[in-house]
Amino acid sequence: MSQNLDSLTDQIRDLAEGRQAPVSLAERALARVQSHAELNAFVAIDEEIVMTQAKAAQLRWQNGAPLSPIDGIPIAVKDNYLTRDYATTACSDAAPLEPAGVDATVVANLRAAGAVIFGKTNMHEWAYGATNTTSNVGVTKNPHNPAHITGGSSGGSGAAVAAGVVAAALGSDTGGSVRIPSAACGIYGFKPSYGRASRHGVLPLSWSLDAPGPMATELQDIVHLMPYFLGADPKDRSTAHAKPFGSLPDVGPLKLINLTGAGLERSAEVDGAVNAALRQSAAQVEQRTLQDIDRYFAAWEAILHCEASAYHQPLLQTRAEGFSPVTRAHLEAGTRLTGVELLTAQKLRGDLIRYLTTDLGDWDALVLPTLPVPAPAHGEDWQEFGNRRVTTQDSMTWFCWLGNLSGLPCVTLPIAKSSKGLPIGMMLMGRPGADEALLAAALRIDHTLKSKG
Amino acid sequence: MSQNLDSLTDQIRDLAEGRQAPVSLAERALARVQSHAELNAFVAIDEEIVMTQAKAAQLRWQNGAPLSPIDGIPIAVKDNYLTRDYATTACSDAAPLEPAGVDATVVANLRAAGAVIFGKTNMHEWAYGATNTTSNVGVTKNPHNPAHITGGSSGGSGAAVAAGVVAAALGSDTGGSVRIPSAACGIYGFKPSYGRASRHGVLPLSWSLDAPGPMATELQDIVHLMPYFLGADPKDRSTAHAKPFGSLPDVGPLKLINLTGAGLERSAEVDGAVNAALRQSAAQVEQRTLQDIDRYFAAWEAILHCEASAYHQPLLQTRAEGFSPVTRAHLEAGTRLTGVELLTAQKLRGDLIRYLTTDLGDWDALVLPTLPVPAPAHGEDWQEFGNRRVTTQDSMTWFCWLGNLSGLPCVTLPIAKSSKGLPIGMMLMGRPGADEALLAAALRIDHTLKSKG
Repeated sequence: MSQNLDSLTDQIRDLAEGRQAPVSLAERALARVQSHAELNAFVAIDEEIVMTQAKAAQLRWQNGAPLSPIDGIPIAVKDNYLTRDYATTACSDAAPLEPAGVDATVVANLRAAGAVIFGKTNMHEWAYGATNTTSNVGVTKNPHNPAHITGGSSGGSGAAVAAGVVAAALGSDTGGSVRIPSAACGIYGFKPSYGRASRHGVLPLSWSLDAPGPMATELQDIVHLMPYFLGADPKDRSTAHAKPFGSLPDVGPLKLINLTGAGLERSAEVDGAVNAALRQSAAQVEQRTLQDIDRYFAAWEAILHCEASAYHQPLLQTRAEGFSPVTRAHLEAGTRLTGVELLTAQKLRGDLIRYLTTDLGDWDALVLPTLPVPAPAHGEDWQEFGNRRVTTQDSMTWFCWLGNLSGLPCVTLPIAKSSKGLPIGMMLMGRPGADEALLAAALRIDHTLKSKG
Repeated sequence: MSQNLDSLTDQIRDLAEGRQAPVSLAERALARVQSHAELNAFVAIDEEIVMTQAKAAQLRWQNGAPLSPIDGIPIAVKDNYLTRDYATTACSDAAPLEPAGVDATVVANLRAAGAVIFGKTNMHEWAYGATNTTSNVGVTKNPHNPAHITGGSSGGSGAAVAAGVVAAALGSDTGGSVRIPSAACGIYGFKPSYGRASRHGVLPLSWSLDAPGPMATELQDIVHLMPYFLGADPKDRSTAHAKPFGSLPDVGPLKLINLTGAGLERSAEVDGAVNAALRQSAAQVEQRTLQDIDRYFAAWEAILHCEASAYHQPLLQTRAEGFSPVTRAHLEAGTRLTGVELLTAQKLRGDLIRYLTTDLGDWDALVLPTLPVPAPAHGEDWQEFGNRRVTTQDSMTWFCWLGNLSGLPCVTLPIAKSSKGLPIGMMLMGRPGADEALLAAALRIDHTLKSKG
């Protein structure tokens, strides 16, 4: 791993300048699927389907009429997005194997721009977990060290990008599932504001928390991909008031708030990396303590489990044996939460949003590590950090769920390597609906860190 | 009862023409409280507070500077609205006796217009029932026949208006609590669209179903009162997008849909009265069958019980002995509903809204009886109609809950008397947010019926 990967942005430039062509991009990506087979990043890929798309794109470039700057660029898709050419399994034997034939809205948007829909990536079963160790096709392995996990649930997409198979991939994020494998695999990942990106055609985990998002080699890649994610989609009512992606605003001096508090502990190594990055960022940084983390976390869990159980009720009744035991246990536990507990959770969600967006005053981004520890090794059930002993599952969502419960847009940047050579990510959260401003701030910080790094 | 009552509209005209004065209006209303004391309509009234307001209004009229056309008109207030001059009890010993000193937004709006906030009216304990037979100050009696109930939960307001104590009163409506006593007592009642009227300062029963609304002698009275109800209130987030009350639109030929189906049965007498009214209305009337009433009703109940239980959790833990046994049993049952049941109910609410507003096609109003039977007698636990045997409680909300689950604006008109001389009401439901159009249609129908009656 860690050959110098070319980014989506590089590929866009190379295509435009005629130094690269869709067929060779596709052939290289297919070859890398083979050479990185041990990562187990893909669950479905069809060479003929890929090459047919690449050849059509190549013809369009040859005719001087590409559909868009990304025409012919391979993009991998998490296996909970419906895709015209592949079945969709959510990596679960309980899935009714959604037939091919329909594209999720984001996939359809990318396809209309000529992107090569490259194949389906491995994921945590039904996206109901953050380690990618529960999947009906087996675990994914971290390109930085195959003895370590990728995190999840979009672990296959994370591994495929980090290994350089594709420059960008699609993930989905209910408690961090885009950001967790992005941080664990050392790439960039973005979760849009709740309600700005269409989930139509993405199998739900928890409809009031879910967001689709891009994972990519460079932050600028994400800027290139956002227009295909954001905007109103009549097929997803949550996007009724969503604006399309706009231009990035000019950024003045940045004010960051570094969140800490009981329940936001992190390992000394991660804490050191984030503090070093903040020092280098040239931004104004204020530290604030976030109270009541335990209550907010319980609220996120209650909403997640209730909504997931409600969505899966029909499958639980007809195909219960298809779920892995741990996923099935989650879903059955979800049915035991009371309505009053759910309503209390929904009220706490409102309190958190008000606290972050109003009570904290003026800020450009809220800062947390993306993960409290670097990617754990396969087989590690527990993580210890900051006087805590936490399951590996809970350590993966440790900070990220805050972005889903609040609906704020979030981005993760790779900022350092651990002593064992595993990536460390930093998360920035923006104001609700202000995805462009968050990306502008993140680009500034990322550029500053790279120029000093 | 049934002296020729003067309406709010009459009082507005008489004040403007100098034929009536606030002090004599107040004195007459206070005298009628005494002469109708057996109705048990009021739980708190203070002559000095009333007369002080009336005298101030009279001075303004004498100075040629009334605050509004309703300056000096007495309006009674259900005892779940906070009022500056009176404590608020929700007719429950469990209530923490909200101290006087603060007005609910609707009360504050009326007070700013000079209305005399006349006293607090009896109600079903915590508004958690539709008969007005559970109250810590005893039952209310129907002015048309004191052996019969008023219905509830705004039964005191209904009795006060029907008896001519006041021309108009405030109610609140979670499953029909404005419309039920209005129909049972032979007056007009209006439930605004969900989210157009502020509930700030009205003790909640179920926050996603609750609406405040006026009850009055004539439909035109309601038109006069709507500006004090509708519009955005920063203190009630559900009104964030609420428009203030606008002018009534011109009405073309009306298309009504008469809803029937299993679960929408009514007595032959009520059915005959509604059909006669529809024939006389000169409107185009189409009959449509509403399916799945049982599932929608269960959804309304689940939302009601969960939200009520969540709201009352603190009181249940500290003052449980203050609730009547039946209210306490409801609240405890609500805690046993699951989150999945609540989410299923919330989904069904969306289905119902789509069905009524979209699938049913074009319509100006949906029509149902307000109640399936005339006001039951005190002591009757069951009602029989249309091959059903239904508790008196369920017979009161039989149709009305549809307006709360869907959020549609609703109005009830008195259209006939039963063989026993008890009023029969007809309900019209309008399009969401189109309260003005519903009132315009209802005025047309009411005028037509009166001109032929």
